[in-house]
Amino acid sequence: MPDKLSGIDAMFNARSVAVVGASGNEGKLGFHVMKSLIQGRYSGSIFPINPGKREILGLRSYSSLIHVPSMVDLCVISLPSGLVPGIIRNCAEKDVKGIVLITAGFREIEDESGGRLQDEIMYIADEAGIPVIGPNTFGIVNLHARLNASFTPEFSDIRKGGISLLSQSGGMSHLMGFLSMRDDFGFSKIVGLGNRCNIDFTDMIPYLMRDPDTQVIALYVEGIDNPRRLFEVARGFMGKKPIIAYKVGLSAISDLASKSHTGSLAGRREIYEGAFKQAGILTVESSLELLDTAKALSSSPLPEGCAVAVLSGQAGPAMAACDICEKEGLRIIPFSEKTQKRIDNLLPPMAIRINPVDMGPAWYDSRAIRGIVESVLQDKAIDAILLCVMFASANEGSIRALSGLLTQWGRKKPIVCCFSSPPGIWGEEVKSLVEKGSIVNYATPEKAAKSLSALWKYKRIRESAQGG
Amino acid sequence: MPDKLSGIDAMFNARSVAVVGASGNEGKLGFHVMKSLIQGRYSGSIFPINPGKREILGLRSYSSLIHVPSMVDLCVISLPSGLVPGIIRNCAEKDVKGIVLITAGFREIEDESGGRLQDEIMYIADEAGIPVIGPNTFGIVNLHARLNASFTPEFSDIRKGGISLLSQSGGMSHLMGFLSMRDDFGFSKIVGLGNRCNIDFTDMIPYLMRDPDTQVIALYVEGIDNPRRLFEVARGFMGKKPIIAYKVGLSAISDLASKSHTGSLAGRREIYEGAFKQAGILTVESSLELLDTAKALSSSPLPEGCAVAVLSGQAGPAMAACDICEKEGLRIIPFSEKTQKRIDNLLPPMAIRINPVDMGPAWYDSRAIRGIVESVLQDKAIDAILLCVMFASANEGSIRALSGLLTQWGRKKPIVCCFSSPPGIWGEEVKSLVEKGSIVNYATPEKAAKSLSALWKYKRIRESAQGG
Repeated sequence: MPDKLSGIDAMFNARSVAVVGASGNEGKLGFHVMKSLIQGRYSGSIFPINPGKREILGLRSYSSLIHVPSMVDLCVISLPSGLVPGIIRNCAEKDVKGIVLITAGFREIEDESGGRLQDEIMYIADEAGIPVIGPNTFGIVNLHARLNASFTPEFSDIRKGGISLLSQSGGMSHLMGFLSMRDDFGFSKIVGLGNRCNIDFTDMIPYLMRDPDTQVIALYVEGIDNPRRLFEVARGFMGKKPIIAYKVGLSAISDLASKSHTGSLAGRREIYEGAFKQAGILTVESSLELLDTAKALSSSPLPEGCAVAVLSGQAGPAMAACDICEKEGLRIIPFSEKTQKRIDNLLPPMAIRINPVDMGPAWYDSRAIRGIVESVLQDKAIDAILLCVMFASANEGSIRALSGLLTQWGRKKPIVCCFSSPPGIWGEEVKSLVEKGSIVNYATPEKAAKSLSALWKYKRIRESAQGG
Repeated sequence: MPDKLSGIDAMFNARSVAVVGASGNEGKLGFHVMKSLIQGRYSGSIFPINPGKREILGLRSYSSLIHVPSMVDLCVISLPSGLVPGIIRNCAEKDVKGIVLITAGFREIEDESGGRLQDEIMYIADEAGIPVIGPNTFGIVNLHARLNASFTPEFSDIRKGGISLLSQSGGMSHLMGFLSMRDDFGFSKIVGLGNRCNIDFTDMIPYLMRDPDTQVIALYVEGIDNPRRLFEVARGFMGKKPIIAYKVGLSAISDLASKSHTGSLAGRREIYEGAFKQAGILTVESSLELLDTAKALSSSPLPEGCAVAVLSGQAGPAMAACDICEKEGLRIIPFSEKTQKRIDNLLPPMAIRINPVDMGPAWYDSRAIRGIVESVLQDKAIDAILLCVMFASANEGSIRALSGLLTQWGRKKPIVCCFSSPPGIWGEEVKSLVEKGSIVNYATPEKAAKSLSALWKYKRIRESAQGG
C-alpha cells in the first residue's frame, strides 16, 4: 500500500486532473470545477469525464475515467452519492493518486444510508491506499502549483503565500479566502476537509510540515474525532512550524449543531485550550484573528525576547497598542541610555519620549522620525518594534523616508506596523514593504500588538520544544 | 454670557470660517486647513488670516481677524502657542462663535509655561463665552454641513452618516476615519477634543444628543478629568441615543504614558466598566469594535427581545456566530411549529434544519432560500436575524433573490449580515441594501453576532431608562 504522505503530495502537485461529473451546464458543480481549473491556468492536463459529452468547455471529454489515455494523479468527483463507490473503484483500477470528493449526502445526512455509503467508499479507498479529501468539500487549492480543484473559480485570484489552511467548513474557507483578497496577503494551500473520509487534520499536518511552500498551518476546527491523536501529532512537530487553531462549537447551541456530545460548557473550553497549549498549538478567538496571526507568523522573524518598543506618530494608537502588549505578556521596557539620549535630541520637550514614543511633535520632520526609528532598531535590548503611523496630509512623505530603514532591518527584528491611510494613498509603499517581508501591516494598532504577541508566544513554544 | 450649546452649534454649522495662520506653504498646517475647507466644498465664506499675504490659495487674505469685513462664526487657529492669547482676544472682540485651536505646546509639554499659557487662553475664552475645541487638536469635521475644519483634507471624502465621534486622540480619529472609507460607512461629526480647554466630553454629549444628524455617539477616551461629571451627564441622557466608549490607558504603561495616576490595574478596569455600565454607556475593547458597534446602532432597528435566528449558507459561519451569540446573552431559540414545518419542506433531510439553519443543501435553489428566510422573518417569536452568506460561483444570484425580502423586512426587525465575496462581486447589491437601511453588513460572522448583541444591550438600556 502506498505511503499516505506521498499520495497527498501527488494530489497537491498533480500533473493531471480528471473531473468526474464535469459539465458545461452552469447549474452543476462540475461546471464550476472545470472553470476553476481552466481559469486558474492550471498547467497540467485536464480530463473531463461525462458519458454524455464528447467535449466540455473546449476540452475533449471521456465517457469513463478508465478510458483516459494517460495517467491521472488527481480525480475530482462531483456526482450523486450513489454513483460514488463505482467511481472510487475506477480510481483504484486507474491507479489515481488522490481523490477530492465534492459530493455531499454521506455521514452528515439524517438517513443512515449516508453513513453506510461513507463506510463503503472509505473501505474501497483504504484498500487501494488512495487518500480521499471530503466528502462534502468545496475542494482543495494549491496556489503555488496553480491548482484550483474546487468549485470556486475565484480562489485562483488569491495571492501565493506561506499560509496553509485546513478547514472543516467550506463557508469558513471561502470567508478567509475572500478576506485575504481584500487585505492582499497570500495562501499556500486551502483545504476543505469536509466529512473526513480517510484524510483528517492528523494526516494533513505531517504533509504540511514537510511542504516547503507552507510556513504556517492554520486550522479551523469544529469537532475533532480523535482529539488525543491530533494533539500527539501536533506535539510531535512542536516548534517546527507554527500551528494556529480556531475552534468553534464551544457554545451549547453550536455544539448541538455539530452533533457532538454536549458536556459542561466552560469545562470543555478550558479542556480544549489546555490541550491545544500543551500540544504547542496557538489558539485564537475569531476567523480574523486566525488570519492576522497566520500573517505575522508566515512572514516575520521571531523576536529574541519580549521587550517591545512602541513608536507611534500619535499618542492614541500607542496607548491602545500598549494596553494589548501588556495584557498579552509583552514588555514595554525603558531604552538604553544611548538610545534615549538620541531620541531626546530629536524630539522637542514633550512628555512621551520614553517607550512608548509619541513621535507626533516631530512628525513633519522625516529626518527626526528616521533617527528615532533607527536608534531604537539599533538598541540591542529591544527585541521587536511596533510602529503606528496614521496618515495626515502633512506627513505624506514619512513612509518613503522610513522605507530604506525598514527594508534594512525588517528581516532581523520583527517590525509590526499599523500604517493607516485613505484608500489610494500609501497602498503601494506598504505593499512593497510587506512583499519584501520587511514589515507586517495591520488595519489597527490593537491587531498589530496582538499579532506581535503571537510571534513571542510561538518563540516560546519553539524554545520549549528545543529545550525538551 | 452666551449659552455654550448654541456656541457649539454655531461652530459646527458655521456660515463663515477664518483661518488664523493660513498659508500657501505646504510645510505649514495652515495650508492643509485651507485645503480641507476648499477641497471639501465648504459652502460658507472662508477668510484666510496672514499679515504677510494678500491672497492665499486664490482667496483674499486679511492681515488680522479684526479686519475681516463680515461676521466670523468659526475661527481655526494654527499659530505658535505664544501668539494664541492675542488671537483669542481678537476672537472675543470680533464676536466669534467658536474656536478650533490646532496649535500644540500647552498643558501637554514638560515646561510649566505650557500649563500657564493654557490657563490664560481658557480664562479669556471663558470670559467671552467662546467654546474652544483643542488645543492640540487636528480639528473638527461636520460631514452634513460639508465643513472640514481640520488639517486633513481627506476627511472630506468620508461618507455622511449617523455616527459622531468624540476623540481624545487625533491619531485614533484618523484611523477611524480611514477605516470608514475602506468599509464605506458614514460619520456625522468627527471631533478631536485635544487637550480640552473649555470643551470636554460633558459639553459635547448634550449637543450631540440634540443634534438631528447624530444617531450614535462614539467616544474614544484616554484620561477623564472629571469622571463623576461624565457619568452624570451620560446618565441624564440614558436611552435617548446610544453612547459607546472605547477606553484605553488601562494598562500600567499606557496609564503612565497618559500621565494619569497609576492605581491598581484590574481594579481600575473594573471600576471604569462598572461606572460606564451604570451610566448606560456601552463599552468596547478595540477601535474596530467601536466602529462595528456604532455602525449597527446608527442604522438598525432594535430587537424587541433576545431571540435570534441564525441562518447561514454554510454550517461553519453559523457555528462561529452561535458561539458569540450565546456568550453575549442572545438566545438561539427553537422556531414555531409552523416555521419549522415550512423549513422542513424546503430543505432536504439534512441535520441542521432547526435554529441555526444550514441552508447549504438548498443553496443553489433561490426559491428555497427565499422561503426559509421569509418564514423566519414572519415568525413572531424571532426578534432578530443573523444571516451569513459566503459567495460561491454557483450561488451568485442568491443575494438578488433575497434583496426584495430584506428591503421589505429590514426596517421592522434587525437583519445583521455577513455577506462575503471576492472584491468586485456583490459589492453593489450589499451597498444598496446597507444604504436603504435594510441590513447591516460585517466582514465576519463573529462581528455580525457581536454587533447584534450590542443592539440588544442597548435595547435593555433604553428599557431600563424608560422603566426608571
